[in-house]
Amino acid sequence: MKILVVNAGSSSIKYQVVDMTDESLLAKGLVDRVGIPGTTLEHEPVGKDEVVIKKDLPDHTEGMKLVLEVLTNEEYGVVKSMDEIGAVGHRVVHGGEDFSESVIIDDNVVKAIRDCFDIAPLHNPPNLMGIEACQNLMPNVNHVAVFDTAFHQTMEPENYMYALPYEAYEKFKVRRYGFHGTSHKYVADRAASMLGKPYEDCKVITLHLGNGASMAAIDGGNVVDTSMGFTPLQGLVMGTRSGDIDPAIVFFLMEKLGLDFSEANNYFNKKSGMLGVSGVSNDLRDILEAASSGNERAQLALDIYYNRVKSYIGSYMAKLNGCDCLVFTAGVGENGYDIRENICKDLEFLGIKMDTEKNKVRGKEVDVATEDSKVRILVIPTNEELVIARDTYNLSK
Amino acid sequence: MKILVVNAGSSSIKYQVVDMTDESLLAKGLVDRVGIPGTTLEHEPVGKDEVVIKKDLPDHTEGMKLVLEVLTNEEYGVVKSMDEIGAVGHRVVHGGEDFSESVIIDDNVVKAIRDCFDIAPLHNPPNLMGIEACQNLMPNVNHVAVFDTAFHQTMEPENYMYALPYEAYEKFKVRRYGFHGTSHKYVADRAASMLGKPYEDCKVITLHLGNGASMAAIDGGNVVDTSMGFTPLQGLVMGTRSGDIDPAIVFFLMEKLGLDFSEANNYFNKKSGMLGVSGVSNDLRDILEAASSGNERAQLALDIYYNRVKSYIGSYMAKLNGCDCLVFTAGVGENGYDIRENICKDLEFLGIKMDTEKNKVRGKEVDVATEDSKVRILVIPTNEELVIARDTYNLSK
Repeated sequence: MKILVVNAGSSSIKYQVVDMTDESLLAKGLVDRVGIPGTTLEHEPVGKDEVVIKKDLPDHTEGMKLVLEVLTNEEYGVVKSMDEIGAVGHRVVHGGEDFSESVIIDDNVVKAIRDCFDIAPLHNPPNLMGIEACQNLMPNVNHVAVFDTAFHQTMEPENYMYALPYEAYEKFKVRRYGFHGTSHKYVADRAASMLGKPYEDCKVITLHLGNGASMAAIDGGNVVDTSMGFTPLQGLVMGTRSGDIDPAIVFFLMEKLGLDFSEANNYFNKKSGMLGVSGVSNDLRDILEAASSGNERAQLALDIYYNRVKSYIGSYMAKLNGCDCLVFTAGVGENGYDIRENICKDLEFLGIKMDTEKNKVRGKEVDVATEDSKVRILVIPTNEELVIARDTYNLSK
Repeated sequence: MKILVVNAGSSSIKYQVVDMTDESLLAKGLVDRVGIPGTTLEHEPVGKDEVVIKKDLPDHTEGMKLVLEVLTNEEYGVVKSMDEIGAVGHRVVHGGEDFSESVIIDDNVVKAIRDCFDIAPLHNPPNLMGIEACQNLMPNVNHVAVFDTAFHQTMEPENYMYALPYEAYEKFKVRRYGFHGTSHKYVADRAASMLGKPYEDCKVITLHLGNGASMAAIDGGNVVDTSMGFTPLQGLVMGTRSGDIDPAIVFFLMEKLGLDFSEANNYFNKKSGMLGVSGVSNDLRDILEAASSGNERAQLALDIYYNRVKSYIGSYMAKLNGCDCLVFTAGVGENGYDIRENICKDLEFLGIKMDTEKNKVRGKEVDVATEDSKVRILVIPTNEELVIARDTYNLSK
């Protein structure tokens, strides 16, 4: 069976086609600027040349129509007809408390995704637009929702509840949800294979370090805690997000700067983080370069970044009472070896010792701990689309 | 030399008289409801009966006048005349970035205390009222300011800076300051004595657990990090304060509940924490009792509390790359042995093993770790007033 994986954002549609007979990728692509003048589709069929199509598209349905045309195109398509696609897997950011696993989308699931619009206003509405566009165009196959929050639903209340008036949870569902679940799940599972240990017996700390970044403490496949919270703002320092701060800073700065709620959201989510401190960029590569040229604020941003990650490693060591391995993944985690090295420095007391020579790799599955390191340090490229394809296949075969 | 120690709140004045020849306490007391009908002074001279005086007092100057009358009273006073008082030590909550040590108060210091009104609106104004009242009444002795923030000024930028737009620091001094510094300092110093190790060589994690609560990671007498931040709202779960949350919850709930800045301040500082979750009380004793009677929300509040402290222990272990001891202090830390036990449970991987029998003590200096515990677990009653008296004496002798 071939699976179409769809990740719809407010003005973009990412897609992949995966052949589940051998889990091979057949094509991937991106439609950008959907509903905005200058729409572009970039299509990368495996083993063939990349195709770029520029054509203004008013909405997600027209965007998906173009994707299907491209996928079945004689020249650069990857299937003869859409009948070869057995099911469609959709990334959905927020599943609230209703979903701890992927599900076939029916009216109740659509309602549940809609119920989370309020707590995921930037993500769930476009996710649902993608689902509805695909359902209209492919009414005869299963559509599966794979939630970013689902893997974290094993957390105990002591980790997902905030110390707020209880009504904040009862009335407004304010609690920790966690995100990047599909990625944390994929690399935790791969880590167990690399350790040669049953997944159920592994204590793993996963570090998904990209432009967005989060960590998870995972015991026997169950998430104990994760660093993102009610929204993706909490936790680590990110490209443009502050991560953890004194909550009193929010109302202090809102008052000082005269920010309304939407401006405050923008301030802490889009203007803070590595960009805010460094003044250089939200991209760690730019910041590393600036720091090595002597830019002090760029160096400060890096120091804060490393320090925050270290802090969570210690915290999760305490919550798991030890661990078998750290796993670095996502853009920065897979490729930024200097960043991995700085994070793992001076953690011998916790049993973490990196082989800094072995560590000089990018984007490969590898163990970069010293032989005598009690805790293994793994680099594992993530593959969220494959998890979506697998879940979709398992629910549809 | 005898030292008067003064801690002035918005409607209260706490005081102590300490004889520095042997650091013995001569008297302590509290004037409550200053400026509010029903002012009461409770005076406890050591070795004599407690005295209670009810007399409405309009302001801090009248309050201090009554204190001086009581201190020199023939029957229950502790000095013949105020000439015996060699200096006055004042607790000041916020010293901003200007003070890393206690100082003799002059016009510049008064200005600096006033400059922090904006970032410590609840504390610095009454602290200064206390200072000015005492200066008027005792113009010929040294007045010394001892800051709650001073001990934490050794933090490096990577620990005190938030990942916010840099201007938040430059224009509004938004950074981590930390509080309870006098207490963390006192117990860290005592811990070194108990370990029989030079203070400069000790790595200590101090847990000041009272109605307000904070932790500090201290390396060789220098604070590396502390859990309170820009304000005392950040960090651990407290009686009525949330501690760490997703900052996005602040504007989400402000919008949902229609809170203005002052109401938001009140919500997160006065209605949250142990009170908010349990719905029972802000006092851990009440919550322990409710939990043992089967109140599930009381048990949840405790579980969140323990979990948060554990998390900081791990985090600080990582930041210090190991530590010699944990130190429990303040009301809950000194007396709540069940709470200490729950915090230290399942931390063997970090080298922390408690002797739960030894641990059944209240308010005594004692090591409650097992013999083979790599990290010692100390209980040390705090004495902030003694630190204030010592600093005042050292600057005045």
